Amino acid sequence: MDSVSRLEALEEIRQAKYRYLRCVDLKLWDEIADVFTEDATAGYGTPAMGKKLDLSGREAILDFLRTNMGPGIISVHHASQPEITLADDGMTAEGTWCFEDRIIATEYNVVIQGAAFYEDRYAKGADSKWRIAHTGYQRTYEAMMSTDDLKSFKITANRWAD
Amino acid sequence: MDSVSRLEALEEIRQAKYRYLRCVDLKLWDEIADVFTEDATAGYGTPAMGKKLDLSGREAILDFLRTNMGPGIISVHHASQPEITLADDGMTAEGTWCFEDRIIATEYNVVIQGAAFYEDRYAKGADSKWRIAHTGYQRTYEAMMSTDDLKSFKITANRWAD
Amino acid sequence: MDSVSRLEALEEIRQAKYRYLRCVDLKLWDEIADVFTEDATAGYGTPAMGKKLDLSGREAILDFLRTNMGPGIISVHHASQPEITLADDGMTAEGTWCFEDRIIATEYNVVIQGAAFYEDRYAKGADSKWRIAHTGYQRTYEAMMSTDDLKSFKITANRWAD
Repeated sequence: MDSVSRLEALEEIRQAKYRYLRCVDLKLWDEIADVFTEDATAGYGTPAMGKKLDLSGREAILDFLRTNMGPGIISVHHASQPEITLADDGMTAEGTWCFEDRIIATEYNVVIQGAAFYEDRYAKGADSKWRIAHTGYQRTYEAMMSTDDLKSFKITANRWAD
Repeated sequence: MDSVSRLEALEEIRQAKYRYLRCVDLKLWDEIADVFTEDATAGYGTPAMGKKLDLSGREAILDFLRTNMGPGIISVHHASQPEITLADDGMTAEGTWCFEDRIIATEYNVVIQGAAFYEDRYAKGADSKWRIAHTGYQRTYEAMMSTDDLKSFKITANRWAD
Repeated sequence: MDSVSRLEALEEIRQAKYRYLRCVDLKLWDEIADVFTEDATAGYGTPAMGKKLDLSGREAILDFLRTNMGPGIISVHHASQPEITLADDGMTAEGTWCFEDRIIATEYNVVIQGAAFYEDRYAKGADSKWRIAHTGYQRTYEAMMSTDDLKSFKITANRWAD
Protein backbone atom coordinates (compact mmCIF):
# COMPACT_ATOMS: atom_id res chain seq x y z
CA MET A 1 0.00 0.00 0.00
CA ASP A 2 1.62 3.27 -1.08
CA SER A 3 1.88 6.36 1.10
CA VAL A 4 -0.87 8.34 -0.59
CA SER A 5 -3.37 5.48 -0.48
CA ARG A 6 -2.57 5.03 3.20
CA LEU A 7 -3.06 8.72 3.99
CA GLU A 8 -6.31 8.74 2.04
CA ALA A 9 -7.61 5.66 3.84
CA LEU A 10 -6.82 7.21 7.23
CA GLU A 11 -8.68 10.37 6.22
CA GLU A 12 -11.71 8.40 5.01
CA ILE A 13 -11.85 6.35 8.19
CA ARG A 14 -11.72 9.52 10.28
CA GLN A 15 -14.54 10.93 8.15
CA ALA A 16 -16.71 7.86 8.83
CA LYS A 17 -16.16 8.30 12.55
CA TYR A 18 -16.82 12.04 12.46
CA ARG A 19 -20.07 11.45 10.58
CA TYR A 20 -21.07 8.86 13.17
CA LEU A 21 -20.38 11.24 16.04
CA ARG A 22 -22.22 14.14 14.40
CA CYS A 23 -25.23 11.97 13.54
CA VAL A 24 -25.48 10.72 17.13
CA ASP A 25 -25.47 14.20 18.65
CA LEU A 26 -27.77 15.63 15.96
CA LYS A 27 -30.07 12.57 16.06
CA LEU A 28 -29.74 12.00 12.30
CA TRP A 29 -30.83 8.35 12.34
CA ASP A 30 -31.38 8.08 8.60
CA GLU A 31 -27.96 9.47 7.74
CA ILE A 32 -26.19 7.38 10.37
CA ALA A 33 -27.26 4.01 8.91
CA ASP A 34 -24.69 4.08 6.12
CA VAL A 35 -21.87 4.70 8.59
CA PHE A 36 -22.12 1.09 9.78
CA THR A 37 -21.48 -2.19 8.00
CA GLU A 38 -24.63 -4.33 7.91
CA ASP A 39 -23.24 -6.72 10.53
CA ALA A 40 -21.68 -4.00 12.69
CA THR A 41 -21.53 -4.51 16.44
CA ALA A 42 -21.52 -1.94 19.22
CA GLY A 43 -20.70 -2.12 22.91
CA TYR A 44 -22.67 0.76 24.41
CA GLY A 45 -23.93 1.66 27.80
CA THR A 46 -22.88 3.83 30.66
CA PRO A 47 -22.86 2.47 34.23
CA ALA A 48 -25.11 5.36 35.29
CA MET A 49 -27.83 4.10 32.91
CA GLY A 50 -27.62 0.39 33.70
CA LYS A 51 -25.56 -2.53 32.42
CA LYS A 52 -23.39 -2.57 29.33
CA LEU A 53 -25.17 -3.37 26.08
CA ASP A 54 -23.78 -5.49 23.27
CA LEU A 55 -25.65 -4.78 20.08
CA SER A 56 -25.32 -6.91 16.98
CA GLY A 57 -26.20 -5.69 13.50
CA ARG A 58 -26.84 -2.24 12.05
CA GLU A 59 -30.57 -2.49 12.71
CA ALA A 60 -30.09 -3.28 16.39
CA ILE A 61 -27.74 -0.31 16.75
CA LEU A 62 -30.20 2.03 15.00
CA ASP A 63 -33.07 0.76 17.15
CA PHE A 64 -31.06 1.41 20.28
CA LEU A 65 -30.16 4.94 19.22
CA ARG A 66 -33.71 5.87 18.15
CA THR A 67 -35.13 4.55 21.41
CA ASN A 68 -32.58 5.92 23.86
CA MET A 69 -31.49 9.21 22.33
CA GLY A 70 -34.81 10.99 21.92
CA PRO A 71 -35.48 14.71 22.30
CA GLY A 72 -35.32 14.52 26.12
CA ILE A 73 -31.61 13.77 25.86
CA ILE A 74 -28.95 16.33 24.95
CA SER A 75 -25.77 14.45 24.03
CA VAL A 76 -22.29 15.72 23.22
CA HIS A 77 -19.61 13.28 22.08
CA HIS A 78 -16.27 14.95 21.50
CA ALA A 79 -13.59 12.66 20.08
CA SER A 80 -10.05 13.23 18.96
CA GLN A 81 -6.58 11.63 19.04
CA PRO A 82 -7.25 8.92 16.42
CA GLU A 83 -4.62 6.17 16.32
CA ILE A 84 -5.65 4.04 13.36
CA THR A 85 -3.82 0.96 12.09
CA LEU A 86 -4.58 -0.31 8.61
CA ALA A 87 -4.35 -4.02 7.80
CA ASP A 88 -1.76 -4.91 5.15
CA ASP A 89 -4.41 -5.47 2.48
CA GLY A 90 -5.89 -2.01 3.14
CA MET A 91 -9.41 -3.44 3.56
CA THR A 92 -9.81 -3.32 7.35
CA ALA A 93 -8.45 -1.20 10.14
CA GLU A 94 -8.47 -0.84 13.91
CA GLY A 95 -8.51 2.42 15.77
CA THR A 96 -8.54 3.95 19.19
CA TRP A 97 -9.80 7.45 20.01
CA CYS A 98 -10.07 9.49 23.14
CA PHE A 99 -13.47 10.99 23.80
CA GLU A 100 -15.41 12.91 26.38
CA ASP A 101 -19.17 12.88 26.52
CA ARG A 102 -21.88 14.75 28.35
CA ILE A 103 -25.50 13.65 28.54
CA ILE A 104 -28.14 16.01 29.89
CA ALA A 105 -31.46 14.35 30.64
CA THR A 106 -33.39 17.61 30.65
CA GLU A 107 -36.61 16.28 32.22
CA TYR A 108 -34.72 14.79 35.16
CA ASN A 109 -32.15 17.56 35.74
CA VAL A 110 -29.44 14.93 35.48
CA VAL A 111 -26.00 15.36 33.91
CA ILE A 112 -23.79 12.37 33.14
CA GLN A 113 -20.25 13.18 32.14
CA GLY A 114 -17.26 11.01 31.38
CA ALA A 115 -14.28 10.09 29.28
CA ALA A 116 -13.26 6.89 27.54
CA PHE A 117 -11.19 5.43 24.77
CA TYR A 118 -13.03 4.02 21.77
CA GLU A 119 -11.79 0.69 20.44
CA ASP A 120 -13.17 0.45 16.92
CA ARG A 121 -12.85 -1.71 13.85
CA TYR A 122 -13.44 -0.44 10.32
CA ALA A 123 -14.05 -2.16 6.98
CA LYS A 124 -13.87 -1.00 3.38
CA GLY A 125 -16.93 -2.06 1.39
CA ALA A 126 -17.31 -3.31 -2.18
CA ASP A 127 -18.26 0.32 -2.99
CA SER A 128 -14.84 1.47 -1.61
CA LYS A 129 -16.50 3.27 1.33
CA TRP A 130 -15.10 2.86 4.82
CA ARG A 131 -17.64 1.95 7.49
CA ILE A 132 -17.62 1.17 11.20
CA ALA A 133 -17.63 -2.62 11.75
CA HIS A 134 -17.41 -2.36 15.53
CA THR A 135 -17.46 0.43 18.05
CA GLY A 136 -16.98 0.10 21.77
CA TYR A 137 -15.19 1.82 24.58
CA GLN A 138 -13.77 1.44 28.03
CA ARG A 139 -14.45 4.27 30.44
CA THR A 140 -11.65 6.18 32.09
CA TYR A 141 -14.29 7.59 34.40
CA GLU A 142 -17.93 8.55 34.50
CA ALA A 143 -19.76 10.74 36.97
CA MET A 144 -23.32 11.88 37.42
CA MET A 145 -25.00 14.67 39.30
CA SER A 146 -28.24 16.56 39.56
CA THR A 147 -28.35 20.17 38.44
CA ASP A 148 -30.66 20.72 41.43
CA ASP A 149 -27.42 21.13 43.41
CA LEU A 150 -26.67 24.28 41.42
CA LYS A 151 -29.32 26.91 42.15
CA SER A 152 -28.16 29.18 39.34
CA PHE A 153 -27.84 26.47 36.67
CA LYS A 154 -29.92 27.31 33.62
CA ILE A 155 -30.04 25.78 30.15
CA THR A 156 -29.95 28.74 27.76
CA ALA A 157 -30.07 26.78 24.49
CA ASN A 158 -31.39 23.31 23.68
CA ARG A 159 -31.56 22.22 20.06
CA TRP A 160 -34.38 19.81 20.88
CA ALA A 161 -36.62 22.18 22.79
CA ASP A 162 -36.11 25.74 21.50
CA MET B 1 -7.93 17.50 -8.40
CA ASP B 2 -5.44 14.77 -7.55
CA SER B 3 -5.28 12.94 -4.22
CA VAL B 4 -2.23 14.73 -2.87
CA SER B 5 -3.58 18.20 -3.70
CA ARG B 6 -6.83 17.27 -2.00
CA LEU B 7 -5.10 16.01 1.15
CA GLU B 8 -2.96 19.15 1.22
CA ALA B 9 -5.96 21.43 0.83
CA LEU B 10 -7.77 19.66 3.67
CA GLU B 11 -4.72 20.08 5.90
CA GLU B 12 -4.38 23.77 5.04
CA ILE B 13 -8.05 24.43 5.72
CA ARG B 14 -7.76 22.71 9.10
CA GLN B 15 -4.71 24.87 9.82
CA ALA B 16 -6.67 28.05 9.08
CA LYS B 17 -9.39 26.96 11.50
CA TYR B 18 -6.89 25.93 14.20
CA ARG B 19 -5.18 29.32 13.91
CA TYR B 20 -8.54 31.03 14.22
CA LEU B 21 -9.44 29.06 17.34
CA ARG B 22 -6.05 29.65 18.98
CA CYS B 23 -6.13 33.37 18.19
CA VAL B 24 -9.60 33.74 19.73
CA ASP B 25 -8.64 32.06 22.99
CA LEU B 26 -5.24 33.80 23.18
CA LYS B 27 -6.75 37.17 22.11
CA LEU B 28 -4.27 37.54 19.23
CA TRP B 29 -6.30 40.08 17.28
CA ASP B 30 -3.48 41.12 14.95
CA GLU B 31 -2.65 37.55 13.97
CA ILE B 32 -6.29 36.56 13.53
CA ALA B 33 -7.00 39.13 10.80
CA ASP B 34 -5.32 37.13 8.05
CA VAL B 35 -7.41 34.06 8.89
CA PHE B 36 -10.45 35.73 7.33
CA THR B 37 -11.21 36.76 3.77
CA GLU B 38 -11.82 40.50 3.56
CA ASP B 39 -15.56 39.99 3.06
CA ALA B 40 -15.87 37.20 5.61
CA THR B 41 -19.10 36.84 7.56
CA ALA B 42 -19.66 35.41 11.02
CA GLY B 43 -22.78 34.33 12.91
CA TYR B 44 -21.79 34.69 16.55
CA GLY B 45 -23.59 35.04 19.79
CA THR B 46 -24.70 32.85 22.62
CA PRO B 47 -28.26 33.03 23.95
CA ALA B 48 -26.87 33.67 27.44
CA MET B 49 -25.29 36.91 26.20
CA GLY B 50 -28.18 38.22 24.13
CA LYS B 51 -29.38 37.81 20.59
CA LYS B 52 -27.44 36.22 17.73
CA LEU B 53 -25.12 38.52 15.84
CA ASP B 54 -24.51 38.50 12.13
CA LEU B 55 -21.25 40.24 11.32
CA SER B 56 -20.24 41.22 7.82
CA GLY B 57 -16.64 41.85 6.79
CA ARG B 58 -13.30 41.12 8.44
CA GLU B 59 -13.23 44.50 10.19
CA ALA B 60 -16.64 43.98 11.78
CA ILE B 61 -15.56 40.54 13.06
CA LEU B 62 -12.32 41.92 14.50
CA ASP B 63 -14.18 44.80 16.15
CA PHE B 64 -16.58 42.38 17.75
CA LEU B 65 -13.78 40.15 19.08
CA ARG B 66 -11.71 43.06 20.43
CA THR B 67 -14.73 44.53 22.18
CA ASN B 68 -16.27 41.38 23.61
CA MET B 69 -13.32 39.15 24.41
CA GLY B 70 -11.26 41.42 26.64
CA PRO B 71 -9.17 40.38 29.65
CA GLY B 72 -12.25 39.88 31.85
CA ILE B 73 -13.25 36.92 29.71
CA ILE B 74 -11.50 33.53 29.76
CA SER B 75 -12.57 31.61 26.66
CA VAL B 76 -11.87 28.04 25.61
CA HIS B 77 -13.00 26.81 22.19
CA HIS B 78 -12.20 23.18 21.59
CA ALA B 79 -13.01 21.93 18.11
CA SER B 80 -12.50 18.64 16.34
CA GLN B 81 -14.23 16.23 13.94
CA PRO B 82 -13.73 18.29 10.75
CA GLU B 83 -15.85 17.14 7.82
CA ILE B 84 -14.66 19.29 4.94
CA THR B 85 -15.90 19.12 1.35
CA LEU B 86 -13.85 20.76 -1.38
CA ALA B 87 -15.53 22.24 -4.43
CA ASP B 88 -14.54 20.61 -7.72
CA ASP B 89 -12.30 23.51 -8.71
CA GLY B 90 -10.42 23.28 -5.41
CA MET B 91 -10.92 27.00 -4.68
CA THR B 92 -13.68 26.88 -2.07
CA ALA B 93 -14.81 24.43 0.57
CA GLU B 94 -17.49 23.86 3.17
CA GLY B 95 -16.94 22.29 6.53
CA THR B 96 -18.63 21.26 9.74
CA TRP B 97 -16.86 20.80 13.08
CA CYS B 98 -17.99 19.80 16.51
CA PHE B 99 -16.92 22.13 19.28
CA GLU B 100 -17.36 22.73 22.97
CA ASP B 101 -16.73 26.10 24.54
CA ARG B 102 -16.48 27.51 28.01
CA ILE B 103 -16.58 31.19 28.86
CA ILE B 104 -15.67 32.38 32.33
CA ALA B 105 -16.59 35.99 33.04
CA THR B 106 -14.25 36.31 35.98
CA GLU B 107 -15.64 39.58 37.38
CA TYR B 108 -19.17 38.20 37.47
CA ASN B 109 -18.44 34.62 38.66
CA VAL B 110 -20.36 33.38 35.66
CA VAL B 111 -19.58 30.29 33.58
CA ILE B 112 -21.24 29.70 30.22
CA GLN B 113 -20.66 26.30 28.71
CA GLY B 114 -21.98 24.65 25.58
CA ALA B 115 -21.51 22.62 22.46
CA ALA B 116 -22.33 23.27 18.83
CA PHE B 117 -21.49 22.38 15.28
CA TYR B 118 -19.68 24.96 13.18
CA GLU B 119 -20.93 25.44 9.65
CA ASP B 120 -18.10 27.17 7.81
CA ARG B 121 -17.09 28.16 4.31
CA TYR B 122 -13.50 28.55 3.17
CA ALA B 123 -11.87 30.21 0.17
CA LYS B 124 -8.42 29.96 -1.40
CA GLY B 125 -6.93 33.36 -2.13
CA ALA B 126 -4.87 34.66 -5.04
CA ASP B 127 -1.87 34.03 -2.76
CA SER B 128 -2.89 30.32 -2.49
CA LYS B 129 -3.74 30.70 1.20
CA TRP B 130 -6.95 29.23 2.58
CA ARG B 131 -9.06 31.59 4.68
CA ILE B 132 -12.39 31.50 6.48
CA ALA B 133 -15.10 33.07 4.31
CA HIS B 134 -17.91 32.34 6.77
CA THR B 135 -18.14 30.88 10.23
CA GLY B 136 -21.28 30.19 12.17
CA TYR B 137 -22.74 27.53 14.36
CA GLN B 138 -25.91 26.04 15.71
CA ARG B 139 -25.91 25.15 19.39
CA THR B 140 -26.57 21.63 20.58
CA TYR B 141 -26.97 23.13 24.02
CA GLU B 142 -25.74 25.96 26.18
CA ALA B 143 -25.94 26.37 29.93
CA MET B 144 -24.90 29.02 32.40
CA MET B 145 -24.32 29.08 36.12
CA SER B 146 -22.73 31.15 38.82
CA THR B 147 -19.67 29.78 40.56
CA ASP B 148 -21.18 31.28 43.73
CA ASP B 149 -23.09 27.99 43.97
CA LEU B 150 -19.79 26.19 44.52
CA LYS B 151 -18.24 27.35 47.79
CA SER B 152 -14.91 25.66 47.06
CA PHE B 153 -14.58 26.85 43.45
CA LYS B 154 -11.31 28.69 42.92
CA ILE B 155 -9.54 29.84 39.77
CA THR B 156 -5.92 28.74 40.20
CA ALA B 157 -4.58 30.08 36.89
CA ASN B 158 -5.80 32.84 34.61
CA ARG B 159 -3.65 33.87 31.67
CA TRP B 160 -5.20 37.36 31.70
CA ALA B 161 -4.79 38.12 35.39
CA ASP B 162 -1.71 36.29 36.75
CA MET C 1 10.72 18.02 1.16
CA ASP C 2 7.93 16.85 -1.13
CA SER C 3 4.23 17.12 -0.32
CA VAL C 4 3.68 13.46 0.50
CA SER C 5 6.69 13.25 2.84
CA ARG C 6 5.45 16.39 4.58
CA LEU C 7 1.92 15.03 5.04
CA GLU C 8 3.35 11.72 6.31
CA ALA C 9 5.64 13.49 8.79
CA LEU C 10 2.72 15.55 10.13
CA GLU C 11 0.67 12.38 10.59
CA GLU C 12 3.52 10.59 12.37
CA ILE C 13 4.10 13.52 14.72
CA ARG C 14 0.40 13.61 15.56
CA GLN C 15 0.55 9.86 16.24
CA ALA C 16 3.45 10.34 18.67
CA LYS C 17 1.46 12.96 20.56
CA TYR C 18 -1.74 10.86 20.57
CA ARG C 19 0.21 7.88 21.95
CA TYR C 20 1.67 10.13 24.64
CA LEU C 21 -1.75 11.43 25.65
CA ARG C 22 -3.32 7.96 25.71
CA CYS C 23 -0.44 6.50 27.73
CA VAL C 24 -0.71 9.29 30.33
CA ASP C 25 -4.43 8.78 30.88
CA LEU C 26 -4.19 4.96 30.79
CA LYS C 27 -1.03 4.99 32.96
CA LEU C 28 0.93 2.93 30.40
CA TRP C 29 4.39 3.87 31.67
CA ASP C 30 6.26 1.15 29.77
CA GLU C 31 4.67 2.08 26.46
CA ILE C 32 5.14 5.80 26.99
CA ALA C 33 8.94 5.63 27.28
CA ASP C 34 9.51 5.32 23.53
CA VAL C 35 7.39 8.41 22.85
CA PHE C 36 10.21 10.60 24.20
CA THR C 37 13.73 11.21 22.96
CA GLU C 38 16.28 10.17 25.58
CA ASP C 39 17.09 13.78 26.42
CA ALA C 40 13.50 15.00 26.28
CA THR C 41 12.42 17.81 28.56
CA ALA C 42 9.00 18.55 30.01
CA GLY C 43 7.51 21.58 31.70
CA TYR C 44 4.72 20.14 33.86
CA GLY C 45 2.82 21.28 36.85
CA THR C 46 -0.47 22.85 37.63
CA PRO C 47 -0.69 25.82 40.00
CA ALA C 48 -3.25 23.89 42.06
CA MET C 49 -0.63 21.23 42.81
CA GLY C 50 2.33 23.50 43.54
CA LYS C 51 5.02 25.17 41.50
CA LYS C 52 5.87 24.42 37.88
CA LEU C 53 8.25 21.54 37.30
CA ASP C 54 10.99 21.42 34.70
CA LEU C 55 12.02 17.85 34.06
CA SER C 56 15.10 16.92 32.10
CA GLY C 57 15.57 13.54 30.45
CA ARG C 58 13.21 10.68 29.64
CA GLU C 59 13.89 8.95 32.96
CA ALA C 60 13.02 12.05 34.99
CA ILE C 61 9.75 12.42 33.07
CA LEU C 62 8.83 8.76 33.59
CA ASP C 63 9.70 8.99 37.31
CA PHE C 64 7.46 12.02 37.65
CA LEU C 65 4.54 10.32 35.90
CA ARG C 66 4.84 7.05 37.85
CA THR C 67 4.99 8.93 41.14
CA ASN C 68 2.29 11.52 40.55
CA MET C 69 -0.27 9.73 38.39
CA GLY C 70 -1.04 6.66 40.49
CA PRO C 71 -4.41 4.89 40.82
CA GLY C 72 -5.80 7.61 43.12
CA ILE C 73 -5.74 10.02 40.19
CA ILE C 74 -8.18 9.94 37.28
CA SER C 75 -6.76 12.08 34.46
CA VAL C 76 -8.25 13.11 31.13
CA HIS C 77 -6.14 15.04 28.63
CA HIS C 78 -8.06 15.97 25.52
CA ALA C 79 -5.96 17.63 22.82
CA SER C 80 -6.71 18.80 19.32
CA GLN C 81 -6.01 21.65 16.89
CA PRO C 82 -2.39 20.67 16.06
CA GLU C 83 -0.41 23.39 14.29
CA ILE C 84 2.88 21.72 13.44
CA THR C 85 5.77 23.33 11.56
CA LEU C 86 8.46 21.09 10.12
CA ALA C 87 12.06 22.29 9.85
CA ASP C 88 13.41 22.49 6.31
CA ASP C 89 15.49 19.34 6.71
CA GLY C 90 12.43 17.39 7.90
CA MET C 91 14.22 16.14 11.03
CA THR C 92 12.70 18.37 13.69
CA ALA C 93 9.39 20.15 14.17
CA GLU C 94 7.58 22.49 16.49
CA GLY C 95 3.92 22.28 17.36
CA THR C 96 1.16 23.88 19.35
CA TRP C 97 -2.03 22.13 20.43
CA CYS C 98 -5.06 23.19 22.39
CA PHE C 99 -5.98 20.90 25.26
CA GLU C 100 -8.35 20.62 28.15
CA ASP C 101 -7.64 18.43 31.13
CA ARG C 102 -9.51 17.19 34.16
CA ILE C 103 -7.89 15.58 37.19
CA ILE C 104 -10.03 13.87 39.80
CA ALA C 105 -8.20 13.05 43.03
CA THR C 106 -10.75 10.48 44.15
CA GLU C 107 -9.57 10.15 47.76
CA TYR C 108 -9.78 13.90 48.31
CA ASN C 109 -12.99 14.66 46.37
CA VAL C 110 -11.07 17.26 44.43
CA VAL C 111 -11.50 18.12 40.75
CA ILE C 112 -8.93 20.25 38.91
CA GLN C 113 -9.96 21.39 35.46
CA GLY C 114 -8.30 23.63 32.92
CA ALA C 115 -7.23 24.44 29.42
CA ALA C 116 -3.88 25.30 27.90
CA PHE C 117 -1.85 25.33 24.73
CA TYR C 118 0.98 22.85 24.41
CA GLU C 119 4.22 24.15 23.01
CA ASP C 120 6.13 21.08 21.87
CA ARG C 121 9.24 20.16 19.93
CA TYR C 122 9.64 16.90 18.03
CA ALA C 123 12.64 15.05 16.60
CA LYS C 124 13.02 12.26 14.06
CA GLY C 125 15.37 9.54 15.28
CA ALA C 126 18.00 7.47 13.47
CA ASP C 127 15.26 4.79 13.29
CA SER C 128 13.01 7.27 11.41
CA LYS C 129 10.55 7.44 14.33
CA TRP C 130 9.23 10.79 15.49
CA ARG C 131 9.46 11.43 19.22
CA ILE C 132 8.67 14.25 21.63
CA ALA C 133 11.84 16.24 22.40
CA HIS C 134 10.05 18.79 24.58
CA THR C 135 6.55 19.22 25.89
CA GLY C 136 5.26 22.13 27.90
CA TYR C 137 2.24 24.33 28.09
CA GLN C 138 0.91 27.66 29.21
CA ARG C 139 -2.45 27.63 30.93
CA THR C 140 -5.39 29.61 29.60
CA TYR C 141 -7.05 28.92 32.93
CA GLU C 142 -7.23 26.36 35.67
CA ALA C 143 -9.82 25.93 38.39
CA MET C 144 -10.31 23.59 41.28
CA MET C 145 -13.25 22.62 43.44
CA SER C 146 -14.39 19.99 45.88
CA THR C 147 -17.16 17.63 44.85
CA ASP C 148 -18.40 17.98 48.45
CA ASP C 149 -20.19 21.10 47.17
CA LEU C 150 -22.38 18.86 44.98
CA LYS C 151 -24.49 16.60 47.19
CA SER C 152 -25.61 14.45 44.27
CA PHE C 153 -22.17 14.02 42.65
CA LYS C 154 -21.29 10.37 42.24
CA ILE C 155 -18.52 8.65 40.32
CA THR C 156 -20.22 5.83 38.41
CA ALA C 157 -17.13 4.42 36.67
CA ASN C 158 -13.45 4.59 37.57
CA ARG C 159 -10.99 2.55 35.53
CA TRP C 160 -8.59 2.42 38.51
CA ALA C 161 -11.04 1.29 41.15
CA ASP C 162 -13.81 -0.81 39.55
